[in-house]
Amino acid sequence: MTILVAYSEIALKSRYVRNRLERMLAEHIVFVLRRKGFEDFQVLRRFGRLYVEGVPQEAAALVAKVFGVASAMPAHRTDSSLDSVIGLIVKVAADAIKGGESFAVRPKAVGEHPYSSRDLAVKGGSAVLEALSDREVRVDLDEPDVTLYVEVRDRDAFVYTNIIPGVLGLPYGSQGRMVSLFSGGIDSPVAAWLMMKRGVAVLPLLMDQRPWVGDGYIERAEDAFRSLREYAPVADFDLYVAPMGGVMGAIMESPEPRFRCVLCKRAMYRIASAFAREKKAKGIITGESLGQVASQTLDNIYVLDEAAEMPVIRPVIGLDKVEIEEVARRIGTYEVSAVRVDGCKVVPGKPATRSSTEKIYGLEERLDLKRLCLEAAARIEKRVFG
Amino acid sequence: MTILVAYSEIALKSRYVRNRLERMLAEHIVFVLRRKGFEDFQVLRRFGRLYVEGVPQEAAALVAKVFGVASAMPAHRTDSSLDSVIGLIVKVAADAIKGGESFAVRPKAVGEHPYSSRDLAVKGGSAVLEALSDREVRVDLDEPDVTLYVEVRDRDAFVYTNIIPGVLGLPYGSQGRMVSLFSGGIDSPVAAWLMMKRGVAVLPLLMDQRPWVGDGYIERAEDAFRSLREYAPVADFDLYVAPMGGVMGAIMESPEPRFRCVLCKRAMYRIASAFAREKKAKGIITGESLGQVASQTLDNIYVLDEAAEMPVIRPVIGLDKVEIEEVARRIGTYEVSAVRVDGCKVVPGKPATRSSTEKIYGLEERLDLKRLCLEAAARIEKRVFG
Repeated sequence: MTILVAYSEIALKSRYVRNRLERMLAEHIVFVLRRKGFEDFQVLRRFGRLYVEGVPQEAAALVAKVFGVASAMPAHRTDSSLDSVIGLIVKVAADAIKGGESFAVRPKAVGEHPYSSRDLAVKGGSAVLEALSDREVRVDLDEPDVTLYVEVRDRDAFVYTNIIPGVLGLPYGSQGRMVSLFSGGIDSPVAAWLMMKRGVAVLPLLMDQRPWVGDGYIERAEDAFRSLREYAPVADFDLYVAPMGGVMGAIMESPEPRFRCVLCKRAMYRIASAFAREKKAKGIITGESLGQVASQTLDNIYVLDEAAEMPVIRPVIGLDKVEIEEVARRIGTYEVSAVRVDGCKVVPGKPATRSSTEKIYGLEERLDLKRLCLEAAARIEKRVFG
Repeated sequence: MTILVAYSEIALKSRYVRNRLERMLAEHIVFVLRRKGFEDFQVLRRFGRLYVEGVPQEAAALVAKVFGVASAMPAHRTDSSLDSVIGLIVKVAADAIKGGESFAVRPKAVGEHPYSSRDLAVKGGSAVLEALSDREVRVDLDEPDVTLYVEVRDRDAFVYTNIIPGVLGLPYGSQGRMVSLFSGGIDSPVAAWLMMKRGVAVLPLLMDQRPWVGDGYIERAEDAFRSLREYAPVADFDLYVAPMGGVMGAIMESPEPRFRCVLCKRAMYRIASAFAREKKAKGIITGESLGQVASQTLDNIYVLDEAAEMPVIRPVIGLDKVEIEEVARRIGTYEVSAVRVDGCKVVPGKPATRSSTEKIYGLEERLDLKRLCLEAAARIEKRVFG
């Protein structure tokens, strides 16, 4: 069986860029299929499509999830002579159309051929009617039970009945690298996933705030990371962990508890910035929303942004909670993210919703937070998973 | 008729915040209905719902589009005595259920009543069956043709058959103010709309780059602004226009044409920042995507961000072009945004996809761009529309 792969935005690029993106996409498909145990297949680049040869039909669902894929079609292949194509149409029809069902032939021919698309539709339709005359099948061009898609591309012809919608986006890593602040809650895996989909190579960074959070918090993040990793079509996708206990200890000495959260988040931005610089990443992805919780105000975002020293990308800032949850369900991170864990134990009763930068600067200097953040960044470690 | 209004996230807030948001939402509904010519109605706040009294059924579609509304139900109202409720159920059923159709009664009672929700379902169902016995109607709890929703809230009872899904989000302006870089193409109205939905009061800012763009470019932005204004539930929603001709003239004198686009965009960020500071706005919204066009690289975003001097919010950065277009169609800006206009005439053949900040700083100083940007910002004017 051949999986025919169509891509969307890649097709719109200049020849040079398209070539690079096609090559990446082919490599990613190979990686994802090998990871799931498929062997002895090959991926060919031909005429605006990729062909995955030598895999069973169920591989198509995996291929459809690779970033950059618009759709994946498990197809049967033959040569482009009229007899071969009509023969294959009849063979696929015999497997797909049950007694009493209706069908339509939808042909598309790319390249020069001694027949037209219309010829394929007419001759293919007649041949199926004749071959399946004992099943009382009929043609219905408007709402067929079975659609026989026929794609002739140069010397190859494909027939398929099923189009699996792809995840869209651009090949992973084609647009550079970013660090993603990763707590494993509902929002941060969705934010990371959306940017992975847009072609960003993501470095998920978990802040280990123990003992101010419980072990469950860390385990949830690890589980969410594993869910997300399913979408990474490369071997070097790792969870990084920053030991933040020292920073947290200092923040606890702040004379004004209501600024704890802002100081803590600014510290996270700072640690992430230092890590990003080391990894030559060009920005920080966060799962911040606006107004979802009391501390997510524009005033606070203003104060946080300023600590980042590089662009902060907030892919879910325009979404409602229910919309973020919808994406989480669709991509499969919801279940692990929705696990109840003990959150931070030191969140004050009334976190500040506005904070002047002068006030914050003063506290940061007094608590020596900049230095502590750089120290934490220097001790970031890769978590190794089986 | 009464329009019953349910809200989503507002309901999750603390009593104080909820009170403020409910009041805003009620004011916005009044504004939107008055703008469309409705009169002699009132909006009441009761028990976790708003009631819009004295409007025809078609007003519900308008109410559903107000940010913060989870759903709008055009309903009939009566008092909460059992007889009155059953009587209203029968009356609504007689109007809604045609011969041979099935129905279900779905009751919900909030507050203390001498009957249960189950009583309403059983008695309401029997009463309908009896009253419509000549129409051969039947009960179907799984897939009814008509659902009779019954909501009893304290001394009021409502019956309705239609739930119009709302736009969700938070009341407009409840989350502060931002400036939106507004070209009127597909992306920028969607970006602005998403943040309006999240409660941000948006100041759309158009850069008038004439003569380097045509009049059509300006007209398209004006049309897109008018489409977007339909969603602004307040009187002071205006299009601001920055005269950017002088800045563009200076950029044209840059010795290296390939940096023109970066210089131009940095100038836009700068002008928007100055304007935002004047208006006490807390950030800049852009319609930037990643990898959609050649210049939308992380490298360029890095260099642009740095010119903004405040948070840059990019609500569509995680979306594919087709996904942005889907939103544009849904909110009604697509048609005006998709109009072909002459874009900028001075885009170089190969715009830079990477630019070092030092290089850019040097050019900006040489061309005196900072001063020109401040001058342009000082001359921003509100465009007045009928």
